[in-house]
This record gives sequence, structure tokens and C-alpha cells, in this order.
Amino acid sequence: MEETGSLYEREPPVPPGEYVRVNHGTLREFARKIFAAAGLRTDDAWVVADVLVTADLMGISSHGVQRTRRYVDGLLTRCVNPRPEVRIVRDRGATVLLDADNGLGHIAGVKAVEVAVDKARRYGTSLVLVRNSHHYGIAGYYSLKAVERGFIGVSATNSEPLVAYVNTVGRTLGTNPIAVGIPTRSPPPILFDAATAVVPVGKVEMYARLGRGVPEGWVVDSEGRVLSGDASKVLSEIRAGRAAILPLGGLGEEFGGHKGSGLAFVVDVISGVLSGAAWGARVGYTVGAAPANVGHSFAAIDVEAFMSREEFYERIESYVREVKSLRKHPDADGVWIPGEKAWKTMATRLRIGIPVHVRVCEELNSIAEKLGLSERIC
Amino acid sequence: MEETGSLYEREPPVPPGEYVRVNHGTLREFARKIFAAAGLRTDDAWVVADVLVTADLMGISSHGVQRTRRYVDGLLTRCVNPRPEVRIVRDRGATVLLDADNGLGHIAGVKAVEVAVDKARRYGTSLVLVRNSHHYGIAGYYSLKAVERGFIGVSATNSEPLVAYVNTVGRTLGTNPIAVGIPTRSPPPILFDAATAVVPVGKVEMYARLGRGVPEGWVVDSEGRVLSGDASKVLSEIRAGRAAILPLGGLGEEFGGHKGSGLAFVVDVISGVLSGAAWGARVGYTVGAAPANVGHSFAAIDVEAFMSREEFYERIESYVREVKSLRKHPDADGVWIPGEKAWKTMATRLRIGIPVHVRVCEELNSIAEKLGLSERIC
Repeated sequence: MEETGSLYEREPPVPPGEYVRVNHGTLREFARKIFAAAGLRTDDAWVVADVLVTADLMGISSHGVQRTRRYVDGLLTRCVNPRPEVRIVRDRGATVLLDADNGLGHIAGVKAVEVAVDKARRYGTSLVLVRNSHHYGIAGYYSLKAVERGFIGVSATNSEPLVAYVNTVGRTLGTNPIAVGIPTRSPPPILFDAATAVVPVGKVEMYARLGRGVPEGWVVDSEGRVLSGDASKVLSEIRAGRAAILPLGGLGEEFGGHKGSGLAFVVDVISGVLSGAAWGARVGYTVGAAPANVGHSFAAIDVEAFMSREEFYERIESYVREVKSLRKHPDADGVWIPGEKAWKTMATRLRIGIPVHVRVCEELNSIAEKLGLSERIC
Repeated sequence: MEETGSLYEREPPVPPGEYVRVNHGTLREFARKIFAAAGLRTDDAWVVADVLVTADLMGISSHGVQRTRRYVDGLLTRCVNPRPEVRIVRDRGATVLLDADNGLGHIAGVKAVEVAVDKARRYGTSLVLVRNSHHYGIAGYYSLKAVERGFIGVSATNSEPLVAYVNTVGRTLGTNPIAVGIPTRSPPPILFDAATAVVPVGKVEMYARLGRGVPEGWVVDSEGRVLSGDASKVLSEIRAGRAAILPLGGLGEEFGGHKGSGLAFVVDVISGVLSGAAWGARVGYTVGAAPANVGHSFAAIDVEAFMSREEFYERIESYVREVKSLRKHPDADGVWIPGEKAWKTMATRLRIGIPVHVRVCEELNSIAEKLGLSERIC
């Protein structure tokens, strides 16, 4: 944690010398041009760029612009359809099924939230499922889109297998995140956004960069051994497909591994099985021989279906105040509301720029060059 | 685990000599008479008895008939209203707000599921919130009620404070469980039912009975020390209010304590803040000076809003088969679908009876006697 005056970054650039600070608008525009050059429509390119840059702003660099290559590769190999026509397959009033037409998940995701909010405005709540999609970036982006309209927003997705189902070895589940955004009278909104795995792979990558040891309880190999220590070694086992991330709750059932695994399973049943998408180990990657067929879920709740907006704001503000005044654990860095760290990081990075690793800069420049763009990002 | 032929109990009676096997119908009828004698209407008494006995059948004895005394005390002291009129406060189409009239949560819960299913049948999905309620027993009971009607059922509730919010000491959150039931063509249905705490207090109680040591990572005291070892000592610290259960993910953020804590918070915001009920440390107990004002959430999803029932069943059966054929971790007792252990325990106990601890028998007999009933349970 770095905290200087009002500056705060939950994932500060380490070592700082390897990073360049880039203005968020510049970075978004650069990414937009790349995706447009890779075949996306102008508006769709902006959406994908905005999701990536928002992740970087929030300090979730694993889901930020460093994903550009993966998406561009998917587009250029036509594993991903660059010009998807997202269409409504079924509409039952408060529920809608969308087909993403094998495009990037961000495009269908933004459309799905719009539909979910419209439906919730009419019926109080809604559930929109999406099939035939791809990776959609950070789940929280879509929840915040609902929050911007004054609604409670829920977003969840399945993803390519990386996590061990409880009591098994190998990779069966995605990190299958769940995000819930809750509006407040004034920023920050509340944003719970969590993988149902104990950690994202991005955290192991960060530990490898920092030379830190992986604690016991994050990763299990194909023989059932818990891998810990040297993060670079653990990371290479994961990348080689010989290790899996453990579910939230860890190995076995003693600390609730069945709960994290069960949550991931439930997310998968609703996002994948019920939507008509793939599930479990069948979910594909952005760059593959076949469409990934990722499935997403979105729900919205109209606060005013239950009480006046004013009353809700007063009540949620009381709860937030009560949490912030709790007695801090002696070892903790602070008492945080869900989403607060991300919000403070965003506020900081809107002011001082997003730290982009020099290797990511080079990769983005190289992608731009290959696509015939003359700009360079850094 | 005890497995004899096709008999399986996930929480076997230990030591067996301290338990009496009671037929589930006999136990339900006995409990029903107790609640009727304590002032509930006949139908309501049956519902409360059925929720308790179902918990015992499923091997969740912490939420079984041993709770009878707590409920009866609440009824007799009029902390709980014995004759609640559950009423609809708001209806926006797919959303309904119910007021439980300060009755036991089971009564409002069963009504709420009926409303949720009716609404989902019409609009595809629904969200029913309940305020001014009390403890409602096992969350999964209500999800299964939706499953019985062919719907996906979601149930969640807040509860009296017992769990530490991440990075704090003291008790702020309830164990705030989430249950999701998913219909299948033939039993067992899928039932995810989990407290957002790392363990329920019932597990510490069980460890105390078995003389087992509590592992590091379940309980934190008011100074932030993790309590482990002698379960009886840990339990007495919890009962004295000097210790809290940790959220799923454990202490701090290294293993995702912010995720378990965040899930509990989100359950509380929707069940408590948005419904008009109490939240956080304000949620009361069944026996207190004031109404508990517990809040619940129920949602239903009509599978046929997204695909034919037949197609859904085929897909979910495939997923279940795929999970059951995964390679088991060498230390695990088996590979289980969410709810499978509970279902097998129920099948066993429907045949051979529910093990009721002799002390619980005596307590039930004593309650019955005080209420003027001539029957004895065992």
C-alpha cells in the first residue's frame, strides 16, 4: 500500500522504475484505436477499451490493458467475431436471454446491463443471461453501469477452467466472479467484486514480480499437493497447466473450500448451463480453435420497488458509517467498505495517471504497429 | 462419516449411546404440538416443525429441533408474535415486499417463496424481500420449496451478529447464509446452502462434543487473537460474547476474508437495508427485549424463461456427471455435488430415524410438559 496525502493505490507499481504513468484518456483512446483497427466498430472498440482502462484505474491490472494482446489475437484469428450482432433470443418480461454472436463479452455485457435496468425499471427486478460470448473483463464494470443509473447491479460470469472443484485435482471451474454494485447518495458507491477462487492468477503474478512467497492454500498441483513458496515457480506450474487455483475457502472442506467451489458452481449453472453457453471445463479461451461460448448473468434491482430512494440512501449511509467506526484488527491496514480501495485507487490514477509496465507499453506499441497505426503509447 | 451399505450420515451421532433414533413423522408431530401449544396456528406450527425436522433430516442438527426452546421462549415472552398476519407492503410486478408482522421467519419464508414462484412464473424471475421477521431456520428449506415447483430458488437472510467484519474485531455480521436450489429431473436436486462465515457455530459445538481441537482460522477474540485448540474453551468464549466467528476466507485478506465478509455484507444490504429490516449489529435475537427485525431475501427463476425444461435437465445432468467423474483429491472422502451429502443423510434418516440427543429429548419433554401436553418424545 502506498498512501501519500490523499493518494492511494491498492496495487502500487513495483518497482516504480519499470512503469510509465499514462493519462487514462490517452490510454483509452490508444486502446480504442487498436480494437477499431482489429476490426471492431467504433462504439464497440470504445466499450472494450473503457472496460480495460477502468480495471487499470481500479488497480486490477491483471484485467487491464495488458489483456489487449489476448483480445486482438482472438479477433485476428477470428476465434472472436469482430462485428457481433447481439440479439434477444427470449423475453419473458423480467428475464431476457441474449446471444452475444461470439463477440467480446464487453459488448454484450454493456448491452445486457441496459436491458437489465430497463426491465427492472418496469418490473422491479430482472435477470438477463448471455450465451455465446467471450471474456468480459472485470465483473464490477457492469454492476457499476447499473449503479450509474441508480439501480443495484449484479454481474457474474463463467470463465475458462483454472480452479479445482472441491475435493478434486485438476481444473474444472473458472474463477467465476460475482459483482454486486449498490448505489449511494454520493461516491463511492459500494462495489463487491470477487472471484470465487481464493485469489486471481493476477495475484500470483504480482507476487512473482515482487519476489514474494506464495502462502500455503492458494494453489494445488495435479497430484493434490499444495504449492507454496517461490511465486515464479508456482506461476510456471499454473501456466504449464500442471496446477490449479484453489476455490475460496482453500483445500478440502475444513475452511469452506466447498463453499467457494459451490458458489463457482452456482454461477456456472446460471451463467452457463441455463443460458445455453458452455460450462465447467468446456468453457473456451479467447484464442482457441472454437468459440469460447462464455456465459454471463446480469441482474438489476430498482431500489424504489422497496422504499424511497432517500430512505435507502440514509439507511445505507448509516451502515457504512457503522462499519467504518468498527474497531480495527491490530494487523490490518484499515477498515474498508467493499469497493472502497478500488475507488480510491481510481481517484488517484485519474489524477496522476495509470502505471503501465514498460513491457506492456512495448507490447501495445508493437500491436499498434502491426495493425498499421502510427501512434505509440509510451 | 458413517457409511454402512447405502446408509450415510454426514453428521453421525457421536457417541451413539447418547442419542435416541426418532421417526421423522413422530418428531414433526411432537414439535408441531409444542408450537401450537405455544400459541401458533395449526398450519404455522406445522411449518416451523417441518423446517426444524428437515434440518435434522439433512444432518444440520444445529438448526434442528434443538432450536425449539429458543423459539418457544421467544413466543412465550411475546418477543415473537405467535399470530402474525404476513402482509404485502409493495408489489411492483416481479418484486414484492412482505412484512412478517414480527412472527417466526419460517411462516413468512414459506409465504414468500410461494409469492416468489408465482411472480417468476409470470415474469421469468422475481425478488421478494421480508422485513420485521425472526430467525427462519435453514436457508435451504426455502430454496427447496421453489425447486419442488420446478423453479430455481434463492434464499438468504441476515441474522444476529456473530461474525467479525474483515479487518475488525467484535461481532458485526450475522452468519448470513445464501442458499440456491436447482431442479433436476430426478433426485437429488442441487442445493448450495452455506453460511458466509467460515463455519457455523454448530461446527464448534460439534468439535466440543467430539473433543476435537478447533483449527486456526475459525474464531477471533476481541483483541484480534485467533483462538484454536480445545473446542470447549473456544465455544465458551463465543458464548460469553468475547469471540467472533471469522468470515469465509478467514482472518485478513490473504485468503479472501474480504470476500466472505463482503458476501455477508451484500446479503445484509439486500435482506436488511433494502427490505426495511435491521442490519449488522442491530439485528436481534429470538428472545430479546425488542423484536429481532430480521430481514430475508427470496428469488425464483423459471427455467423455461431461458430454455425448455428437458434441455435444462439434460445439460445439468451432464454437468453433474462430469463433476462426479473428476479425479478425487487423495485426502478427500469423495466428490460431492452441492446438497448431495444432505440429501443422502435425509434418505438415511427417513429410513432409520433422526438421532436426537438425550438432553434434547429431555428438553423437548420438559417444554411439552410446561405447555400442558401429555406426550413425551423419547
